[in-house]
Amino acid sequence: MPHISLSPEFPGIIGLLKYRQDTGRVLSELAETILVKNSTLTRGERELIASYVSYLNECQFCTRSHSAVASALLNGDKALVNQVKQNYKQANISEKLKALLTIAGQVQKEAKKVSAEIVEEARRHGASDLEIHDTVLIAAAFCMYNRYVDGLATFAPNEEKAYDVMGERLRDQGYLNV
Amino acid sequence: MPHISLSPEFPGIIGLLKYRQDTGRVLSELAETILVKNSTLTRGERELIASYVSYLNECQFCTRSHSAVASALLNGDKALVNQVKQNYKQANISEKLKALLTIAGQVQKEAKKVSAEIVEEARRHGASDLEIHDTVLIAAAFCMYNRYVDGLATFAPNEEKAYDVMGERLRDQGYLNV
Repeated sequence: MPHISLSPEFPGIIGLLKYRQDTGRVLSELAETILVKNSTLTRGERELIASYVSYLNECQFCTRSHSAVASALLNGDKALVNQVKQNYKQANISEKLKALLTIAGQVQKEAKKVSAEIVEEARRHGASDLEIHDTVLIAAAFCMYNRYVDGLATFAPNEEKAYDVMGERLRDQGYLNV
Repeated sequence: MPHISLSPEFPGIIGLLKYRQDTGRVLSELAETILVKNSTLTRGERELIASYVSYLNECQFCTRSHSAVASALLNGDKALVNQVKQNYKQANISEKLKALLTIAGQVQKEAKKVSAEIVEEARRHGASDLEIHDTVLIAAAFCMYNRYVDGLATFAPNEEKAYDVMGERLRDQGYLNV
């Protein structure tokens, strides 16, 4: 049961965005800016980073919803999305994205220890300064969203279908109308 | 040295807010909304939560700058701000704020383990649902800001004076004109 009074029909962060609308609007705008707005990282790549960090933070609602958006953006390839979470080094993704996921994982664990070496590795595979910046910010932002959702003990649906519907809606409409 | 090319005259998050201005604007708005806008928690209380979480995350720039804002808002009482970071249970602050700092510390460490008991303790000392919500969000947001600042290895000044100036400016002007 959530620690505060939230509408039971809105799971996860959705109930929180409605609970306090001024913070909700800014948090939605942040998601739209880092995950949807034009970037040289594809939307699928950015959702994979979000879903991987949420998985490391063991946030069920965020992991499943962002995995669903990633899969909706990647031709429904749920197996790929799952492999990225469990063992991205063996997944069928670019070496650049693997190096960015290494940075994201370090930001989740202990950001101070993001080393010049792992940043250099990303650069060697073609990552730009802006892509490195965006990866760190996405990883950091999900360390916030995950804690917000779990720290208030929000409700996460069990049925896969609920996330599939969210994934397609977020793919098509973005985060501003959640 | 920062992992990406940042203007050397802007330390900590300031260089990052200028590096990518659309994310910078949203991140500043978030800080203004949770730390400055009207709330039943005072600005001093909210800055103490921000400074305590930044201290737990060992983010030097954020700890020192938000400690400076807290102290500027609390009649320059640096000793109190330091005691809150090091041992808030013995500090001369309200029982309500102590209970909220316990929640904030648990959000930083493992948000899933914020228990009904520690939330009930805050409520017993007069915390409202909204204050509990805001505490969790401030703590979660600083888990983002701290990682953003440290994950990109930004520069933190050493001199106390630099933070004192920041603290007074943020007290007087808020976060929208950083």
